[in-house]
Amino acid sequence: MTVELRSDNAAAVSPAILEAMAAVNSGSALAYGGDEVTAALEARVREVFDHPSARVFPVLSGTAANALSLSAMTPPWGSVVCHETAHILASEGGATSFLSGGAVMTGVAGEGYKIAPEALQAQLDGVRWGDPHNSQPAVLALTSPSDYGTVYSVEEIAELTAIAKTRDLRVHLDGARFANAVVATGAAPADLTWRAGVDVLSLGATKNGALSAEAIVCFTDAPADELVYRTKRSGHVTSKMRYQSAQLLAYLTDDLWLHNARNANERMAELAGGLEKAGVRITNSVDANLAWVDMPEETADRLEAAGVLFYRLGGQVRFVTSWQTSAEDVSTVLAALGRA
Amino acid sequence: MTVELRSDNAAAVSPAILEAMAAVNSGSALAYGGDEVTAALEARVREVFDHPSARVFPVLSGTAANALSLSAMTPPWGSVVCHETAHILASEGGATSFLSGGAVMTGVAGEGYKIAPEALQAQLDGVRWGDPHNSQPAVLALTSPSDYGTVYSVEEIAELTAIAKTRDLRVHLDGARFANAVVATGAAPADLTWRAGVDVLSLGATKNGALSAEAIVCFTDAPADELVYRTKRSGHVTSKMRYQSAQLLAYLTDDLWLHNARNANERMAELAGGLEKAGVRITNSVDANLAWVDMPEETADRLEAAGVLFYRLGGQVRFVTSWQTSAEDVSTVLAALGRA
Amino acid sequence: MTVELRSDNAAAVSPAILEAMAAVNSGSALAYGGDEVTAALEARVREVFDHPSARVFPVLSGTAANALSLSAMTPPWGSVVCHETAHILASEGGATSFLSGGAVMTGVAGEGYKIAPEALQAQLDGVRWGDPHNSQPAVLALTSPSDYGTVYSVEEIAELTAIAKTRDLRVHLDGARFANAVVATGAAPADLTWRAGVDVLSLGATKNGALSAEAIVCFTDAPADELVYRTKRSGHVTSKMRYQSAQLLAYLTDDLWLHNARNANERMAELAGGLEKAGVRITNSVDANLAWVDMPEETADRLEAAGVLFYRLGGQVRFVTSWQTSAEDVSTVLAALGRA
Amino acid sequence: MTVELRSDNAAAVSPAILEAMAAVNSGSALAYGGDEVTAALEARVREVFDHPSARVFPVLSGTAANALSLSAMTPPWGSVVCHETAHILASEGGATSFLSGGAVMTGVAGEGYKIAPEALQAQLDGVRWGDPHNSQPAVLALTSPSDYGTVYSVEEIAELTAIAKTRDLRVHLDGARFANAVVATGAAPADLTWRAGVDVLSLGATKNGALSAEAIVCFTDAPADELVYRTKRSGHVTSKMRYQSAQLLAYLTDDLWLHNARNANERMAELAGGLEKAGVRITNSVDANLAWVDMPEETADRLEAAGVLFYRLGGQVRFVTSWQTSAEDVSTVLAALGRA
Repeated sequence: MTVELRSDNAAAVSPAILEAMAAVNSGSALAYGGDEVTAALEARVREVFDHPSARVFPVLSGTAANALSLSAMTPPWGSVVCHETAHILASEGGATSFLSGGAVMTGVAGEGYKIAPEALQAQLDGVRWGDPHNSQPAVLALTSPSDYGTVYSVEEIAELTAIAKTRDLRVHLDGARFANAVVATGAAPADLTWRAGVDVLSLGATKNGALSAEAIVCFTDAPADELVYRTKRSGHVTSKMRYQSAQLLAYLTDDLWLHNARNANERMAELAGGLEKAGVRITNSVDANLAWVDMPEETADRLEAAGVLFYRLGGQVRFVTSWQTSAEDVSTVLAALGRA
Repeated sequence: MTVELRSDNAAAVSPAILEAMAAVNSGSALAYGGDEVTAALEARVREVFDHPSARVFPVLSGTAANALSLSAMTPPWGSVVCHETAHILASEGGATSFLSGGAVMTGVAGEGYKIAPEALQAQLDGVRWGDPHNSQPAVLALTSPSDYGTVYSVEEIAELTAIAKTRDLRVHLDGARFANAVVATGAAPADLTWRAGVDVLSLGATKNGALSAEAIVCFTDAPADELVYRTKRSGHVTSKMRYQSAQLLAYLTDDLWLHNARNANERMAELAGGLEKAGVRITNSVDANLAWVDMPEETADRLEAAGVLFYRLGGQVRFVTSWQTSAEDVSTVLAALGRA
Repeated sequence: MTVELRSDNAAAVSPAILEAMAAVNSGSALAYGGDEVTAALEARVREVFDHPSARVFPVLSGTAANALSLSAMTPPWGSVVCHETAHILASEGGATSFLSGGAVMTGVAGEGYKIAPEALQAQLDGVRWGDPHNSQPAVLALTSPSDYGTVYSVEEIAELTAIAKTRDLRVHLDGARFANAVVATGAAPADLTWRAGVDVLSLGATKNGALSAEAIVCFTDAPADELVYRTKRSGHVTSKMRYQSAQLLAYLTDDLWLHNARNANERMAELAGGLEKAGVRITNSVDANLAWVDMPEETADRLEAAGVLFYRLGGQVRFVTSWQTSAEDVSTVLAALGRA
Repeated sequence: MTVELRSDNAAAVSPAILEAMAAVNSGSALAYGGDEVTAALEARVREVFDHPSARVFPVLSGTAANALSLSAMTPPWGSVVCHETAHILASEGGATSFLSGGAVMTGVAGEGYKIAPEALQAQLDGVRWGDPHNSQPAVLALTSPSDYGTVYSVEEIAELTAIAKTRDLRVHLDGARFANAVVATGAAPADLTWRAGVDVLSLGATKNGALSAEAIVCFTDAPADELVYRTKRSGHVTSKMRYQSAQLLAYLTDDLWLHNARNANERMAELAGGLEKAGVRITNSVDANLAWVDMPEETADRLEAAGVLFYRLGGQVRFVTSWQTSAEDVSTVLAALGRA
């Protein structure tokens, strides 16, 4: 028997979500988002985020959500300021530069894989504003949880967005694992986003139980007006959109999203506790459902031999729990570690 | 009770396809196409198309399939030669110009919404080859069935590709309704594509019973090598790709795709026969599952009042049948027409 | 001895312009347009066009002037509506689609190589406004003189821009030979442009005596604000801009531009008169300095043998006069024609 | 009287170059590079670089030369690896990302503003080759002299290109001040470029006495084949190209380029010697014609008051000498410094 800790992407789909897809599979419906399920999704998002006019664009991958959002937030001559380890900078194959028509990414530093306010300030202070030789910062892009499992607090987000707003930057939040951040912080979705200065959120669902569904959530109108066109001409408007909207609606119904994320975070907390007891060094602050671990090669080899699936990346071992990870899975891993 | 004839996009999902998605919903799987279902899909496509090395990229919309294919077949300074009414020219919001980095579309004429060989030849003869003032034709793009329900024969395709090859153009086939063309012509999939000179096929499934799944099928390697990168950086590689691959695999299994298309084509034939008997003028050759009809406004109003759903576009009425359309639906429409 | 009638591009540089370049060649000057000559140019353009706040961007080719202007006037998902024979559509290698991030060109018909008002209206009426499947017309682009030597009157321009403004299109005028249009119509530069609804003008100078200098003239601010960045990041801001500005300033001083254009137009009128007397059919209305002529191949061969340089394009012969063409040149050609 | 040390861009044009432009100003010539001067330029470049088949594209700015070159050397999904302070990364407004269709820039570290071989190796080792999540390094881009006045030796270039070639990267050299590097190293142009592994050179001339002329020099064919189209559709093919080619031809004739660069380098050496004697700290290795200096604000203020023109950038003072700087200028500056 194996234990899957490679990625939350590797998990299956929540039964409630599959059922919701089946439930809309009768009769016919207007294509391209003109259906009732998509309308219900938008209404539900407004409730969840306590926002009267948020606009929602279902898309099918995190890269699409991020790069399309950013392309609607920066002019082609702008730059997107993000942490130097940000997923959008390191792992999306240049999607934002492509879809934006040539905008660039500027990485800044910060402990814990989070942007340091002083680094952001220094970056903005160093720009020759209005000088076309210099890419003009147009978006502050945050990732929470980061790819290294660390989560911004409401206060941290607000401090950064306040700096960004002094220079009229818009703010994007890559929330591929947003539910895990909500659970980790205990904060209201609104407090983690628009009330803290976020203009557009990539609201992930696929890693946390959906099939293929992410939502771009716009709290301000200008990017949304552009996304009507940008989603279409990049091939991201599916004709049978109701099946995506149904996933997202089920995800946000009866707190399924928080229930799933809570399981992932709690299992990771158990795992991390066990790893530390076993004397294994975890290099990140385990705020959500990822742990990056310094582990001797032989230990990792034995763990693999025992059926634990995980990634070795850049000299480290990465563990990711998901909505499907069970307490038994964690025990199995820790027991195998004890033997190894 | 209503009868849905607006679009095959408005239809539901074939039960067998939903079941296939549920069937892969256990355990975990490698993300981004590294799963067994995606491998099985590629194998199945090679069987269906009798091709030893075709390569398959599942994507989520027809626009994505077309524009990504074309972006991998033309340099940015190229032009895509298509019929002046082609879907890629008229209805994709400029997606190909965008994703290709600025390639242009050149529409040429032809009866029946199909490119006339002499028009293609004249177009190519008029180009100043090698002169950078002039966009250089790089791709011949066919659509079959066209948006007007007409279908190219194997011979028609071969004649056009032969002209294109004299100038080293690659050939793309927009097969958003490819199954309907297979049924309409009775030809083997291989004969309609690579044996007739087609390099890349957009193999549609969504309109014919899938949920959100189209496949780019490359019969030559160069575009496929680029698509590895182009799909990712446009956000078209889903992490849980097995659920898309499962749709496409089920679609191509036990002739589901042909079964569904046959129903659509046959119902349309019945409907068209009835319309003609009723003295209504159909303006296209009804080769597949679409009919464009000259209909007095009052007649159309009454038909709508009777619960028949259809589109009025450019002064005409368009009827589209799908895998779900029943013989009873057709009778209902014809009866309503009789009364109207 | 040869007579040059291939293109006004083939002519030399007006001595006054070369002298103006030499005259600024002392001391040092701020780079990238921060010099006094560029400031003086902008002031002079405002005088010539009787406009209090026009903004000027010197660039180095007509393609740069047109494609950069248009890229600042349309969103990437827009379309540029132009005559189906327009230079920007036929002869710039897709530059506008490239520099705009994927906008498309839509050609419409009209006699005399000029857009017919009813064709423009029909084009706009056929658009599904707000539907992202459909490229959204954003710019009306006029060319005057056209590549076929025809010139719009003030009234013709105003009629077209009025139609365009009902749909909030911006208006661009490709004036690669603008001076020839001013001379041909006798109209004030302001009347031919902003007073008739033109937002941005590509003001050509190279074909009419400059070395390598065209000016983008913006009568509205929004495109100008973008061009600050768009010119730089496409490599169109020269460091020693004063040498370009000096060309344009000399061009617009002491009516040099009109003097040069008047010579070209008058010589063409003489030539056209002679051709007609000789029974040669001219296929365009000779409004400016170009004539397109149906000429038997042997006649053309003999003319070439006599040292007359001209182009044979698409089965026709094209003659272009320039600021350098002399009355003697015209006599020589007509005499040669008489013998041929 | 002022002394100009702001930038070599601020200098005037060498009389020999202006004369060469005037000398071609007679008769007519084929447009768009089909003239004899452009052919002579290509022949001369092949001599100077001792290369039998180098191909030359005259353009009008350094940004155009760099960004167009790079766009022809990387696929849109590639990355351009350069020093973290490189001009192409810091000062071209994202031109390469724009013109390439979305390629990204990756900055690596190194002392003296030059890429450290181990940093390049580490960068390449960290790439997930063939994984589309990861931008694929496609070009190594060097700058010599750097914007900080440091120059790579032939051996340093060869060591870096050798590393790059192990991963099939192409190599670009931004030689906006290439003549200064030739003079500084005493190396043959061929040894500094293609014999050391450079595929494409941006050969600057504007900063060193030309008016507006840079040349892209391709030592390998593939980028040149693309540049035929890429230069046109970005508006960088001037119709009267002979006037640009004449500048470049004069520049490379009778060693004018080396003569001019030698003056700039020697004057800078004198200035730097005087600064050091005066106890001013220079922070770069003064290899060519730029010095970056730590200078107390009051000293800088007094120098300015004495009529010395220079830039204050990022807390430092920058001095740049040019072909026009005289020994007297240097004495004037040093005397003023003595008083300040």
